[in-house]
Amino acid sequence: MFRKEIKVLDCTIRDGGIMNSWHFTDEYVKAVYEACVEAGIDYMEIGYKSSEKSFSRKEVGKWKFCDDKDLKNIVGENKTSLKLSAMADIGRVEPEDIKPSSNSILDMIRVAAYIHQMDKAIWLAEHCIDKGYEVTINLMAVSTAMERDLEEALEDVAKSRVPIFYLVDSFGSMYCEQIERLVQKYQKYLPGKTIGVHMHNNMQLAFSNTVTGIINNCNMLDATFLGIGRGAGNCPLELLLSFLKNPKFKVRPILKVIQEYMLDMQKEIEWGYHIPYLLTGAMNQHPRAALKWMDGENKKDYVAFFNQLNDKVEL
Amino acid sequence: MFRKEIKVLDCTIRDGGIMNSWHFTDEYVKAVYEACVEAGIDYMEIGYKSSEKSFSRKEVGKWKFCDDKDLKNIVGENKTSLKLSAMADIGRVEPEDIKPSSNSILDMIRVAAYIHQMDKAIWLAEHCIDKGYEVTINLMAVSTAMERDLEEALEDVAKSRVPIFYLVDSFGSMYCEQIERLVQKYQKYLPGKTIGVHMHNNMQLAFSNTVTGIINNCNMLDATFLGIGRGAGNCPLELLLSFLKNPKFKVRPILKVIQEYMLDMQKEIEWGYHIPYLLTGAMNQHPRAALKWMDGENKKDYVAFFNQLNDKVEL
Repeated sequence: MFRKEIKVLDCTIRDGGIMNSWHFTDEYVKAVYEACVEAGIDYMEIGYKSSEKSFSRKEVGKWKFCDDKDLKNIVGENKTSLKLSAMADIGRVEPEDIKPSSNSILDMIRVAAYIHQMDKAIWLAEHCIDKGYEVTINLMAVSTAMERDLEEALEDVAKSRVPIFYLVDSFGSMYCEQIERLVQKYQKYLPGKTIGVHMHNNMQLAFSNTVTGIINNCNMLDATFLGIGRGAGNCPLELLLSFLKNPKFKVRPILKVIQEYMLDMQKEIEWGYHIPYLLTGAMNQHPRAALKWMDGENKKDYVAFFNQLNDKVEL
Repeated sequence: MFRKEIKVLDCTIRDGGIMNSWHFTDEYVKAVYEACVEAGIDYMEIGYKSSEKSFSRKEVGKWKFCDDKDLKNIVGENKTSLKLSAMADIGRVEPEDIKPSSNSILDMIRVAAYIHQMDKAIWLAEHCIDKGYEVTINLMAVSTAMERDLEEALEDVAKSRVPIFYLVDSFGSMYCEQIERLVQKYQKYLPGKTIGVHMHNNMQLAFSNTVTGIINNCNMLDATFLGIGRGAGNCPLELLLSFLKNPKFKVRPILKVIQEYMLDMQKEIEWGYHIPYLLTGAMNQHPRAALKWMDGENKKDYVAFFNQLNDKVEL
């Protein structure tokens, strides 16, 4: 599956950080960074740009803010071919939290928004373009968007200067036929723009759905080391690189970080395929109920969680 | 995805047993059986029919032989809608190991064979039909079969009385486009016969490839509780049932067995997604090198395993 236009974005620290409030050690973040460089990854998303009005530094680690001094502490001046990205959540960031790109080591801002926030997302994304950044919009939770709302959002994005638009399976609830249908809709409404895919693994479909994206000409692909990410996690980077035949990618540096850091990390942070995440995914629900269940004392009582979710629905 | 022709076959004990030499407790086997009945599963494959010349009872548990007295100890007279199956490996079973079905609680014999054993497989399968059983042939390791050999095998199966033929991804090395191509070839060569799918999870594609089979009209679907099976394991049954909309299936009984037995079992038996299994899958190799590695002291040294596998190949 060699297509030179394909770009891979690692979001290990950004999405994985949701599971430990971004309290990774600098040593680990640096190891991920160096492995991404060595593996030929195109972008590394190292965290969020967020407002300190929205989050307290007492509760969340520095990668929720991505200050340049913290970034430079890891990447120096980043004289590599790896570009650095941060995500900006609509409603949790102020425009002034994002400095002009000439004063920042960041190359890209990805704006994440729900369907009802699309006007704000386009405004912020164009604001970031004007500040000199590469930009994407990542529309979250599309599996619950109504058809007409989605088409209106796509019409607005089509008219914007935003060059990259992401299909995001926030709930890990979609399978190949749904992915294909949405990708084709995005392409129909957004001629000339690049489509990206960001998949979650609730139903063990994150890699498979990413492959469906590739087959349908999506060229920005999100993945994380060993699939770390919220709840069931993301498309595993080592799996994606083993599949892509692009000669610029190497899987060995990724394996090294997995064995040196992430096997131990798995004992502390319980991401991956677990029954509660499967159940919210299969029912097209936000994983928050599953995340809360997995944090509780009865986390292994799957039948009780199933009964709670299925108060009125039979699966 | 409601199609009433779809039959689900649970092979938890048979394929999962490869990981512990079929040393399950009777209590566990009975729990799996009762859950299958309650969940509306169509077939339960409880083990192998094997020759005692091929295997020693000192080394392998009773489900490698599936004697009727052992079966009846679990299922009684099996007055349920769940049919019972055993697998027969060509070269490891003698025709006389299989009694007439009128003297057995088993309903189905599935004959497993490599491409060069296809003549023997057809002979044994028809022998089992003559003894009164339902029968399938499961062609293993098709990802390494040469095109001409495969077509010749399919032509022979077409002429036989065998009604069900399985697409088996023994190495967990195939993705959707390969599955689709093979299913369509099987269907073209085997008009009127049912195609089944048995997938492995080395690249986290067992469920996804099963879905590809469903979309392409495969109607016999193999799965196991929590995906237990050789190496990376199989398509998880709880995932498959959550996806199928056939009203006869229930997922709750499966979850109950998972939480009561299989979470502890996971501490003893390391099936599932692990890097060595990914690597043999991605390289279309038998998992035996990965199984051996996972049994060794350095099982977490993925880079060393990668280097060993890649003596001459760069991934």
